[in-house]
Amino acid sequence: MRIGILGYGNLGRGVEYAVNENPDTQLVAVFTRRDPSTVKIKTAGVPIVNINDAAAWKDKIDVLILCGGSATDLPVQTPEFASMFNVVDSFDTHAKIPQHFSKVDKAAKDSGHVAIISVGWDPGLFSLARVYSNAIMPDGKDYTFWGKGVSQGHSDAIRRIAGVKNAKQYTIPVEAALDTVRSGKNPELTTRQKHIRECFVVLEDGADAIEIEHQIKTMPNYFDEYDTTVHFISEEELNKNHSGLAHGGFVIRSGKTGQDKQHNHIIEFNLKLDSNPEFTSSVLIAYARAAYRLKLECQSGCKTVFDIAPAYLSALSDEELRARYL
Amino acid sequence: MRIGILGYGNLGRGVEYAVNENPDTQLVAVFTRRDPSTVKIKTAGVPIVNINDAAAWKDKIDVLILCGGSATDLPVQTPEFASMFNVVDSFDTHAKIPQHFSKVDKAAKDSGHVAIISVGWDPGLFSLARVYSNAIMPDGKDYTFWGKGVSQGHSDAIRRIAGVKNAKQYTIPVEAALDTVRSGKNPELTTRQKHIRECFVVLEDGADAIEIEHQIKTMPNYFDEYDTTVHFISEEELNKNHSGLAHGGFVIRSGKTGQDKQHNHIIEFNLKLDSNPEFTSSVLIAYARAAYRLKLECQSGCKTVFDIAPAYLSALSDEELRARYL
Repeated sequence: MRIGILGYGNLGRGVEYAVNENPDTQLVAVFTRRDPSTVKIKTAGVPIVNINDAAAWKDKIDVLILCGGSATDLPVQTPEFASMFNVVDSFDTHAKIPQHFSKVDKAAKDSGHVAIISVGWDPGLFSLARVYSNAIMPDGKDYTFWGKGVSQGHSDAIRRIAGVKNAKQYTIPVEAALDTVRSGKNPELTTRQKHIRECFVVLEDGADAIEIEHQIKTMPNYFDEYDTTVHFISEEELNKNHSGLAHGGFVIRSGKTGQDKQHNHIIEFNLKLDSNPEFTSSVLIAYARAAYRLKLECQSGCKTVFDIAPAYLSALSDEELRARYL
Repeated sequence: MRIGILGYGNLGRGVEYAVNENPDTQLVAVFTRRDPSTVKIKTAGVPIVNINDAAAWKDKIDVLILCGGSATDLPVQTPEFASMFNVVDSFDTHAKIPQHFSKVDKAAKDSGHVAIISVGWDPGLFSLARVYSNAIMPDGKDYTFWGKGVSQGHSDAIRRIAGVKNAKQYTIPVEAALDTVRSGKNPELTTRQKHIRECFVVLEDGADAIEIEHQIKTMPNYFDEYDTTVHFISEEELNKNHSGLAHGGFVIRSGKTGQDKQHNHIIEFNLKLDSNPEFTSSVLIAYARAAYRLKLECQSGCKTVFDIAPAYLSALSDEELRARYL
């Protein structure tokens, strides 16, 4: 399976590592908006190509993995490249998924390609956990907890405050809330009860720490509904201790069965990830395998993780899967 | 979707409850080997039919759910009934799945029906967790822990000892082993390190407790490789405190990514079930929905959970699934 990468940031590098883990895949080109001569990749002998020359690679790539951002890149790139390639993206703006789906579906159907969107862990594996557990237990309650991990949006919000030089914000699930959910009590949890927010902030010289802490803690939508802790640290300490990309989370469904609903069941899926982008890339490459196989079956159009049978993700044969994992 | 139940034990009763939870399903008949007049079910107006008269129901049932045991019932029943109905079973003898699959596949293909085998939580949801996580992280290690729950096979083994009147055996995962796995250390765990076995035994009058405890703890294959605790209790206490059907377990894959494999990731799926048969039944009904839809698409043959896209399990439309769960 010949893989192309579009966009060589954290996610693109992760896909490159993931290709090395999967013997049935081969990296054949990396596409970039930058001057190709300025981009260095790890794999020897793979051409770096300007994104404008991608059309020439139409018949040389089985699946193109789109590694751009959801805000501005993917809404344009996924439909555009689905008209030339089988593609997989990690579009994660939940509210805009229906709109993204319909644009990509049209492009992919018109050109006879397969596109799989919103692949990763949330959306992605967490979405799968929700669909499986809801289908199995119609009478129940869903809970999603994120973290511990860095929230890019919340870190950015802190950095926009005057006097802040740099900042990282961790979203941390509240253990007591997780325990209550796991006990089967089906609690109604407020925003404050589910997550806490911990901020590490580097101040500009002469900035007013007390005022900035107040601004953070009272910021509407971002922090005002949470218990927030603010630590002021040096730039060196931030770079040393808070440049990691760890993340994770928990999807739990708590449901009831039985004549008198007397039996409670907990279905839990959780992830603890040292590198959010590398893990997301690993999911992308598994779904690239699925896209390729669906194309070989002459399917086309836009798909999500809900439409793909698990066997399509694995390099093993159906017989091997049944013997080894069933 | 018109549902038939074959075999009205714990699992059959669970399917009956699950039908009530799913508005798109309707119970139309219960088939039994017993004299139908001796079988009482909860749902009013549903006929109880002798298994030998099942053929007359061929066109009145969309999916027949087979609720027999894996030892002797399903190896015969699933191929036999797949020649007349779309069927779902919970065949769980792991080693014999390939053989079962091939017999059922032939019967279902010859008659143009869909059969889904080995549906439940293990095999079933645990198998899914293994396939997804292995496809995503090829470089890693799998761990499955069962419990806390009653092991029927181990309870039976104790009951076969002379002087034992009744017994229940709990398989309990060792918390310390779970914690080590979750830490990403990828330990090699012995049988003894993963699970402990706790036995509650009712003695016949005059039986030798010390000798029986010794026989249990040294029993080859069943107990000799485990740390086993034996409690002698009264029949009343056994019935009062140990007649539950709770079970559960954990599937964890710990894997590595990155240029120097420096990043560790933990994918965990776990279940905590108050009623093993009712939960299994809930999974069966979701896959019955899939069987019915696949049949409407003119598919036939034997399938497993690996072959079924998650969307087929849900009563919601693709649009609703994307909007609500992605």
